[in-house]
Amino acid sequence: MKRILIINGPNLDLLGTREPHLYGDRTFEAYTHELRLAFPQARITVMHSNVEGELVNALREGAMESDGIVINPAGYSHTSVALRDAIKVVPVPVIEVHISNIHAREEFRHNTLTGAVCEGVITGFGLEGYALAVHHLLQRS
Amino acid sequence: MKRILIINGPNLDLLGTREPHLYGDRTFEAYTHELRLAFPQARITVMHSNVEGELVNALREGAMESDGIVINPAGYSHTSVALRDAIKVVPVPVIEVHISNIHAREEFRHNTLTGAVCEGVITGFGLEGYALAVHHLLQRS
Amino acid sequence: MKRILIINGPNLDLLGTREPHLYGDRTFEAYTHELRLAFPQARITVMHSNVEGELVNALREGAMESDGIVINPAGYSHTSVALRDAIKVVPVPVIEVHISNIHAREEFRHNTLTGAVCEGVITGFGLEGYALAVHHLLQRS
Amino acid sequence: MKRILIINGPNLDLLGTREPHLYGDRTFEAYTHELRLAFPQARITVMHSNVEGELVNALREGAMESDGIVINPAGYSHTSVALRDAIKVVPVPVIEVHISNIHAREEFRHNTLTGAVCEGVITGFGLEGYALAVHHLLQRS
Amino acid sequence: MKRILIINGPNLDLLGTREPHLYGDRTFEAYTHELRLAFPQARITVMHSNVEGELVNALREGAMESDGIVINPAGYSHTSVALRDAIKVVPVPVIEVHISNIHAREEFRHNTLTGAVCEGVITGFGLEGYALAVHHLLQRS
Amino acid sequence: MKRILIINGPNLDLLGTREPHLYGDRTFEAYTHELRLAFPQARITVMHSNVEGELVNALREGAMESDGIVINPAGYSHTSVALRDAIKVVPVPVIEVHISNIHAREEFRHNTLTGAVCEGVITGFGLEGYALAVHHLLQRS
Amino acid sequence: MKRILIINGPNLDLLGTREPHLYGDRTFEAYTHELRLAFPQARITVMHSNVEGELVNALREGAMESDGIVINPAGYSHTSVALRDAIKVVPVPVIEVHISNIHAREEFRHNTLTGAVCEGVITGFGLEGYALAVHHLLQRS
Amino acid sequence: MKRILIINGPNLDLLGTREPHLYGDRTFEAYTHELRLAFPQARITVMHSNVEGELVNALREGAMESDGIVINPAGYSHTSVALRDAIKVVPVPVIEVHISNIHAREEFRHNTLTGAVCEGVITGFGLEGYALAVHHLLQRS
Amino acid sequence: MKRILIINGPNLDLLGTREPHLYGDRTFEAYTHELRLAFPQARITVMHSNVEGELVNALREGAMESDGIVINPAGYSHTSVALRDAIKVVPVPVIEVHISNIHAREEFRHNTLTGAVCEGVITGFGLEGYALAVHHLLQRS
Amino acid sequence: MKRILIINGPNLDLLGTREPHLYGDRTFEAYTHELRLAFPQARITVMHSNVEGELVNALREGAMESDGIVINPAGYSHTSVALRDAIKVVPVPVIEVHISNIHAREEFRHNTLTGAVCEGVITGFGLEGYALAVHHLLQRS
Amino acid sequence: MKRILIINGPNLDLLGTREPHLYGDRTFEAYTHELRLAFPQARITVMHSNVEGELVNALREGAMESDGIVINPAGYSHTSVALRDAIKVVPVPVIEVHISNIHAREEFRHNTLTGAVCEGVITGFGLEGYALAVHHLLQRS
Amino acid sequence: MKRILIINGPNLDLLGTREPHLYGDRTFEAYTHELRLAFPQARITVMHSNVEGELVNALREGAMESDGIVINPAGYSHTSVALRDAIKVVPVPVIEVHISNIHAREEFRHNTLTGAVCEGVITGFGLEGYALAVHHLLQRS
Repeated sequence: MKRILIINGPNLDLLGTREPHLYGDRTFEAYTHELRLAFPQARITVMHSNVEGELVNALREGAMESDGIVINPAGYSHTSVALRDAIKVVPVPVIEVHISNIHAREEFRHNTLTGAVCEGVITGFGLEGYALAVHHLLQRS
Repeated sequence: MKRILIINGPNLDLLGTREPHLYGDRTFEAYTHELRLAFPQARITVMHSNVEGELVNALREGAMESDGIVINPAGYSHTSVALRDAIKVVPVPVIEVHISNIHAREEFRHNTLTGAVCEGVITGFGLEGYALAVHHLLQRS
Repeated sequence: MKRILIINGPNLDLLGTREPHLYGDRTFEAYTHELRLAFPQARITVMHSNVEGELVNALREGAMESDGIVINPAGYSHTSVALRDAIKVVPVPVIEVHISNIHAREEFRHNTLTGAVCEGVITGFGLEGYALAVHHLLQRS
Repeated sequence: MKRILIINGPNLDLLGTREPHLYGDRTFEAYTHELRLAFPQARITVMHSNVEGELVNALREGAMESDGIVINPAGYSHTSVALRDAIKVVPVPVIEVHISNIHAREEFRHNTLTGAVCEGVITGFGLEGYALAVHHLLQRS
Repeated sequence: MKRILIINGPNLDLLGTREPHLYGDRTFEAYTHELRLAFPQARITVMHSNVEGELVNALREGAMESDGIVINPAGYSHTSVALRDAIKVVPVPVIEVHISNIHAREEFRHNTLTGAVCEGVITGFGLEGYALAVHHLLQRS
Repeated sequence: MKRILIINGPNLDLLGTREPHLYGDRTFEAYTHELRLAFPQARITVMHSNVEGELVNALREGAMESDGIVINPAGYSHTSVALRDAIKVVPVPVIEVHISNIHAREEFRHNTLTGAVCEGVITGFGLEGYALAVHHLLQRS
Repeated sequence: MKRILIINGPNLDLLGTREPHLYGDRTFEAYTHELRLAFPQARITVMHSNVEGELVNALREGAMESDGIVINPAGYSHTSVALRDAIKVVPVPVIEVHISNIHAREEFRHNTLTGAVCEGVITGFGLEGYALAVHHLLQRS
Repeated sequence: MKRILIINGPNLDLLGTREPHLYGDRTFEAYTHELRLAFPQARITVMHSNVEGELVNALREGAMESDGIVINPAGYSHTSVALRDAIKVVPVPVIEVHISNIHAREEFRHNTLTGAVCEGVITGFGLEGYALAVHHLLQRS
Repeated sequence: MKRILIINGPNLDLLGTREPHLYGDRTFEAYTHELRLAFPQARITVMHSNVEGELVNALREGAMESDGIVINPAGYSHTSVALRDAIKVVPVPVIEVHISNIHAREEFRHNTLTGAVCEGVITGFGLEGYALAVHHLLQRS
Repeated sequence: MKRILIINGPNLDLLGTREPHLYGDRTFEAYTHELRLAFPQARITVMHSNVEGELVNALREGAMESDGIVINPAGYSHTSVALRDAIKVVPVPVIEVHISNIHAREEFRHNTLTGAVCEGVITGFGLEGYALAVHHLLQRS
Repeated sequence: MKRILIINGPNLDLLGTREPHLYGDRTFEAYTHELRLAFPQARITVMHSNVEGELVNALREGAMESDGIVINPAGYSHTSVALRDAIKVVPVPVIEVHISNIHAREEFRHNTLTGAVCEGVITGFGLEGYALAVHHLLQRS
Repeated sequence: MKRILIINGPNLDLLGTREPHLYGDRTFEAYTHELRLAFPQARITVMHSNVEGELVNALREGAMESDGIVINPAGYSHTSVALRDAIKVVPVPVIEVHISNIHAREEFRHNTLTGAVCEGVITGFGLEGYALAVHHLLQRS
């Protein structure tokens, strides 16, 4: 059984309660439940913080107790050298997910400092992007 | 009675104790006292943090219990996509205040990522900028 | 009694007659009337021109006969070195006001050459921004 | 009968008297005569100024008394936010014309701030560009 | 009788069948028919390709058998050095047409590498831009 | 049964025969076979071209006969306005896939003009990225 | 006897009355008197305006009645395409003078659009720069 | 006997028939004849296309049947990531040739995306550049 | 006896346990021990955090109780205006240290916002850089 | 009697012998003779070198034995931080002269690193620029 | 018999003695010997200096006594306006050679200020590039 | 006994004789004396030149006879590719020192081309920086 850690960055705890026309009406808790049903072979843990350094902590500590990490650094993707440096030293595969398509938004969101050091980036698939990432981590040899 | 939350970002707790020739000799505590006297029709709360993510938290939580927010993100104004994203989803009006005139300082301070999603920006009026922002929030229909 | 001069730049004479959903339905004349009622302790004069050099003239001549100036250079804020140089030599305090939030509009409006040499900048508060500026000038020691 | 206003910006009054090898030997007065013969169904008025703000005035006042405007802002095309803002609020169609091909000249002439808010831009056809613009305005429903 | 060749670049074959609110409901075939009626003194040929190099071919071969060319390189206008080099060596006048106003769209569409070496550029007049270009080519001495 | 069209851009026909340490030793034909086995509920068609305009053609024609498209424009992702314009008008969902992580390579590969108008982008998962895209298209309501 | 026209741009009428420690305590009128004494073989006329377009007018009209022009466009040097275009067509030699050294000030003052089409530029010599320019015009064959 | 493939990009088929003062009056066919006489120890094949993707094809197919390639991608040198990627995987040495000196022309021609992955670049020697490239390929161990 | 505070930023707690070929096999704890032996005349305290705001706190609080500070802000050096502002108001000398040579790494690491307001910067000497900084602080008058 | 040192940078020894249509047919030796006749109250010395560091030496040593320096750093004006640093510490006034108008040439010649720290810059007056500079140095109090 | 001068810039005297895996194990002296054998019809002289100004001198003096120059300015290619100006006035053909492919190295090496004014540039062929340049100079009419 | 070579670039011979408030009143000779006393286990040699190429020579020759080099390239740090290339091939460790903090000065001094290829950079410690560098070289294994 593979252990998957999902790390959500700033403002992602708002999912489902605000702007449902944009982000859907599922909370991330509800979505996590769906994920667990869909991937019974995975033990999925979810962590959230609005604090850049706590994401660094979570990533580094989580890496000790997981076989793969799905991270959505949200606004920190575009500016955080600290998070980038943390991802580089983590010994398990890290996948970056963005709910909306970052290439279709403001120019300062096109580049991802953190995604550049992840194994891969999935952007624009809504919450479904997390499932694709988990799916990949489970299949990956 | 309107509830106004003032959120101060990094290093703003130093006011009044350092560089008084530049920032005056009032502490923000003293200034808050003056503000409350000047605006008896408002219930003014003040919060300070040096941590970007805690400002995100304060903004989001404070929005539940206030009718308007005055924020001075200081150095985070120019780099924080996380704070910008938080301001965008807050349901109460947010005003950005800067004590010094950001357009008159180093070039990296000219642009404000966070101010772009606030209702308005007041910059260069010293501590008086907070009073102008509160004044506006109270008058605003 | 303090003498306040308001200088409006290009296209600001259109207020109230066009795009009322955007700028409200008050003309600047009507708004001036309100301002005078709100600030009986001030003698408020208003000047408007679409011509960059006439704004330079108005600023320089007006400074002789006023105790404070509120200027909205509109489109010239972003390009006029001439107006910037004039503001620098004016001996009374000058406040820059923008009706809409310049940081939320096209990128060429984010920077303000003229605002950088004003005492402060107020942007995004609609016509109310003028009142905030007058309020500040009257209080200022 | 449609009323067409032609507004010429800085230095365009020199046509026909200088550099005839470049701009031809017709004065704009002579050309206007030809235009009126070619378009008897239009009442064509011509205005010229070297002053940016007077062009703003002419545009705004002329819009009251015309059914379409042809403007050649010359050097102001590339820098005038004031003129751009004026064109945006004018209620009749505005066409921008340049005598020479702006894309073939110095790089600072490639972009046109004012043309971006016109209905269309015609550049490089010599004086003939005005006729194409008038032709379009007359046909336009 | 003048021979006019119209060369349409990528995706322009979709006109009339898709996004009629944006581009109208005329197909280019129907429009060509109108053009031929409007300009009986011209022999109008139309060519379309989505392939950059085929546009180079069409331009070069078409130049042998026409007295003027109207080209709408669409997306290739902004990137194609190859097409630019071809236009430069073509011995007949070439006019560039864009249906929408390129200066009013994304920044990467503001500059036109190909238009810089054409006789002139007409942008923003919808399909009518082609008629203006043909009109000019027929009048041109 | 959903019809899925995979469109591969320049040099992607080389997979499996060159640089196996980098791209693995599977040919895309072999991989297509695996894909079909893995997704029996899909009818998967594959098209490849090195020619930008042929990709435009394939995309537009293929859209008539498929329920979803997976495209890997390879080198054209970063420069092709033509392909971008074509994707925008295609009525079926389009997913962009890159085998390697474009954010981890040369700077000119970080931005994707075409991905910005796709539903989403998957980058860095090797050939597995195609499966993730197909998986998403089949699930998508 | 050579006729020399001096054209002063925005804010240069303030010389001698403000910031004497910076610009000296001579008014330009007093300085003109000195210039006339120093160059009895020249007929020196002085014109000033804060309005860009009036400078264009003065330059063009003055060129009819002078043998050489000394211009200090002040803030317009760095932005005025209109003034640049006017200088290019003036048939007498034009010299640009700046009182302070533009290369030693803010970066937006380093480049001079207008100076690039003058015969020469003299910058940093205080009022003495005008004398150097007149001296050159008188000697010039 | 070494097999040398020469691949010419867009507009290079025009050599000798147009602008002879610039490019000489030799056609590339005539020049090829000279090349074959000058290098009897080589079997020289020439291929030309105006289509970017066909150059990719030619490069990849030609590499199977040649010992060295001389390529002049003309306008595609500066923009084609696709061609760059193809050159990188070709197993025989590739030399880039430009007839004119790309460093002496427009700035967008200074950089060569394709030349960066060739063994070397020869630019500015006219047709003679091809001979230098062939000479090198024959000598190369 | 001088009190020296060492503040380590994000990921620096990993030293000695990961990538020993790059960073050596000493933990920072072990290194601190060596430092204390080497500088018996100093009382060395070490603080670490991955959180930007906590570094601001540590810097400001630590400054009360130390005579000199050595800071390695790691990834925050290149983006943190907040940390920069904090360093500026700290009344004791601050030295910035980087283990690797920031000028030899990715371009976004070349500039240091924080180092610009420190007394000096030492970069590229491995852990030895801390000793050099402490050495300097002890000698400094 | 004032001692004036003229320092000429790279390639300026070619004056009069090459491109006389451009630079005139006077050698700098001949011109120096004229200068000495024109300014009998000055003792004029001339130094030339093509070597950046020798210009630094000449400037520093010459400053000991002169009352003013005229320098034409030619190509080094745009790149030499070393020369700039030397000019800053020289205790006598330094004037920069350029024979051609640097603002009218290639963009990399528009800015002058060295001129920014001189008292003033004279550019575009041909050899006459040196006389203007000497004239100024003699008059200067 | 043609006289060929080879001018080598900074650090090129190290060839053959250092990094033989990169630059081969031939010294430039040995290579010169080979060159002379290969081109008996040329009189080849070699000059080397690490000093920018001495290269200017060598170029200018050498041009008097040679029929063609091969120059490898090494690091000065990318920054030396002085050397560029010297090459422009030299009356014999000048060819620039780089041993490694400058387009494949750091971005600051992609552009060559000096190569832009040479007849041609040969880059990436190792020492063999010199032979190609000499070969061209001998053949050149 | 380790041999240490100190190489000083342009204008560093002025230390102690000029601007003592800025650089102190010690000459570098006096400071060298102190250095030798402080490091009796080192044989310290000092070399100075204002000429870029002589610094290249000194570096290369000095490397033969020393065990470590301390270099302060002053103004050449920011522009000299030649010096950078020389440092790269030197077989002994090279440390770059700057007396003032380059990150706190003009923007063109923030980046150091030469420091990027040194072992490390020490900036902002005054003359003390040399001692730190020597200290490091002596300790280095």
